[in-house]
Amino acid sequence: MAHDAPVSPLAPQHTPEPGPVEGVRFATAAAGIRYKGRTDVLLLAMDAGTTVAGVFTRSKCPSAPVEWCRDNLASGTARALVVNSGNANAFTGLKGRESTRLTAEIAAKALGCAQNEIFLASTGVIGEPLDATKFDGVLAETAARLAPVPWIEPARAIMTTDTFPKVATATAEIGGVAVTITGIAKGAGMIAPDMATMLSFVFTDAPIAAPALQALLSDGVVDTFNAITIDGDTSTSDTLMLFATGAAAKRGAPAIASAADPRLAAFRIALDEVLVNLAEQVARDGEGARKLVRIHVTGAVSKQSARRIGMSIANSPLVKTAVAGEDANWGRIVMAVGKAGEPADRDLLAIRFGDITVAKEGMRDPSYDEAEVSAYMKNDVIDIGVDLGLGHGADRVMTCDLTKDYVAINGDYRS
Amino acid sequence: MAHDAPVSPLAPQHTPEPGPVEGVRFATAAAGIRYKGRTDVLLLAMDAGTTVAGVFTRSKCPSAPVEWCRDNLASGTARALVVNSGNANAFTGLKGRESTRLTAEIAAKALGCAQNEIFLASTGVIGEPLDATKFDGVLAETAARLAPVPWIEPARAIMTTDTFPKVATATAEIGGVAVTITGIAKGAGMIAPDMATMLSFVFTDAPIAAPALQALLSDGVVDTFNAITIDGDTSTSDTLMLFATGAAAKRGAPAIASAADPRLAAFRIALDEVLVNLAEQVARDGEGARKLVRIHVTGAVSKQSARRIGMSIANSPLVKTAVAGEDANWGRIVMAVGKAGEPADRDLLAIRFGDITVAKEGMRDPSYDEAEVSAYMKNDVIDIGVDLGLGHGADRVMTCDLTKDYVAINGDYRS
Repeated sequence: MAHDAPVSPLAPQHTPEPGPVEGVRFATAAAGIRYKGRTDVLLLAMDAGTTVAGVFTRSKCPSAPVEWCRDNLASGTARALVVNSGNANAFTGLKGRESTRLTAEIAAKALGCAQNEIFLASTGVIGEPLDATKFDGVLAETAARLAPVPWIEPARAIMTTDTFPKVATATAEIGGVAVTITGIAKGAGMIAPDMATMLSFVFTDAPIAAPALQALLSDGVVDTFNAITIDGDTSTSDTLMLFATGAAAKRGAPAIASAADPRLAAFRIALDEVLVNLAEQVARDGEGARKLVRIHVTGAVSKQSARRIGMSIANSPLVKTAVAGEDANWGRIVMAVGKAGEPADRDLLAIRFGDITVAKEGMRDPSYDEAEVSAYMKNDVIDIGVDLGLGHGADRVMTCDLTKDYVAINGDYRS
Repeated sequence: MAHDAPVSPLAPQHTPEPGPVEGVRFATAAAGIRYKGRTDVLLLAMDAGTTVAGVFTRSKCPSAPVEWCRDNLASGTARALVVNSGNANAFTGLKGRESTRLTAEIAAKALGCAQNEIFLASTGVIGEPLDATKFDGVLAETAARLAPVPWIEPARAIMTTDTFPKVATATAEIGGVAVTITGIAKGAGMIAPDMATMLSFVFTDAPIAAPALQALLSDGVVDTFNAITIDGDTSTSDTLMLFATGAAAKRGAPAIASAADPRLAAFRIALDEVLVNLAEQVARDGEGARKLVRIHVTGAVSKQSARRIGMSIANSPLVKTAVAGEDANWGRIVMAVGKAGEPADRDLLAIRFGDITVAKEGMRDPSYDEAEVSAYMKNDVIDIGVDLGLGHGADRVMTCDLTKDYVAINGDYRS
């Protein structure tokens, strides 16, 4: 299975091992959700007073845990997060709702809090009922082992076809007091017949009210997790949550009520740093990926138009296979710009690979040196620049190449 | 090169060899556009009085020949079609326009007609200037060899990565007089760094005025060529043209001025038959395809919504790799429905593979037999049924599976 796959050549050289986020503790367990003896549950507990924000899949057919989280976000407070692998509890009808309720009931009892303070995420096989009674006893036992480190443990527990654990951390000051932001993520990986899912959970000890936290997260996701794509497919379970324990208030951090508070300036930067780091790690660990591709669109009529053009390029199988083949095939980029449906003038278009301009004013650049660009395409990270020459709209999206391994991983080829 | 690739296992058993379409003659030649000694030009001449209609790529960055054809469609009359392979004359700036003008000038001189009665299509490498002087002498020589059969010759001349020539024919009566409709197509194939292009040309001896012909073609394309997808990518050069020589008028066929004329009823059906046949052949010859996939969406809120949901499924790499792996992975179909952004209620959704219902009312069908559906997935043609349970919108789209061969063909993997 993919757990045995070699680590992506694009994995970061070094996985950070941050210290505790005050107010957050966790432990993992094997509940036998799908396989015996495999770690498949993460229980993460947070101190009373923790606030919560979330953004979820735009799928019209979301999983039961996504609906559970959306419903409970209204209260704005969180005491625990339960994540399981092995079963996505997606497309499980009314039974799926009952499973989420029962899981929350078991977790609430184990931790002594209210059910609507429990948040849930599930990843794994789709369409199979999740037997939540398997959590009975397991979560209570796990709750007795909660610890504030090491972060590699929850990062590993939520992996599916990921080839490396994903952790990122940053610090900032609010009102002169240091606060920490630490997050984990799992990528869009898939083991047939399981469903690809992106999950990410970010924690801070900053004291930030839930509405402000939600505004920060909704802003932060735009140019990070919403700007990456592996294959254009969208999981029924994609979940990004941000939890703030407020523990830094004890050290004098001021309580923040509004996302417009100027004291959040450094915090916003640090949060973006964590989110973009995790999102890039997800793109680096796309199934079968050998190259990270960053697409920089400029000169579009708006940022939204630049985003659509960037995503059209990033999701084009013909562009992605060309990058896999180390082929600077700018004709396919023209094609992907043209099909985006956004304003574009063929005769103003310019295309770069790295710093090398290969096309401008709607034609091949006469000074374009194929040997130079071929050498560039051997890099692990490929920057593609597209200038529309129309306006000031700019955007950056990230993806990976499309290799035979992607097809092998997802094609199953069962005999 | 892909010309040596084995014929697709999905190729029709039999290529039709229709008789002449009165008023149409053709011949092919080797003009040395990209390679010496390879057939790379088709010259097709039509009698005076031929009317023309066309539909073209929606790309915002179309090729020079597409712009040429669009401009000349206004006159409504055609005397010749020149198709070359080896160079797409796309993204060639002002030089591209000059190439089309010069090609038309050479063809008009060879045939003794006006330049704006010449229609052009090009397929091949993108971004390289097309040296139209190579047609000089060649088209005049070719014009001396024009013949009304065999249709396999033009069908072969326009192939690129196609593994088989595509011809279709049908007959109908207009006012009690038999007329013929015969067409050829090339598929969305690609040889790096050339651009995938779908070209199709359909000919009839029916006497139909240009505006009526355009209306017939615009209607006919919706559920045929616009309902197929290989990889969701759109060529800068996609072209479908319909030519009507009117020669059947000599045998008493009435001149048709309006697409609403009830005497066109049988003609419409025959035209649809030819277009759907050619479109299905293109899907069957998708790069690396091992399976034809037909997606039938019912119960959507509208036909347009059903089309978007069908295309979301047809373009999903996760669905396409699952079909390649003979895996009835209905979870990925739920995913693709969910990401389409169209109205859908998870708990009303039903999914079929062939006649086998695998999911209904938002859950796995309790009577679903995995062995039965696994056996079904071994077929060459896979029918996927999705019922939204919301309304009466229905649609059908066609695609093929996504195999390692697709990546190999398009990834180049040059060393």
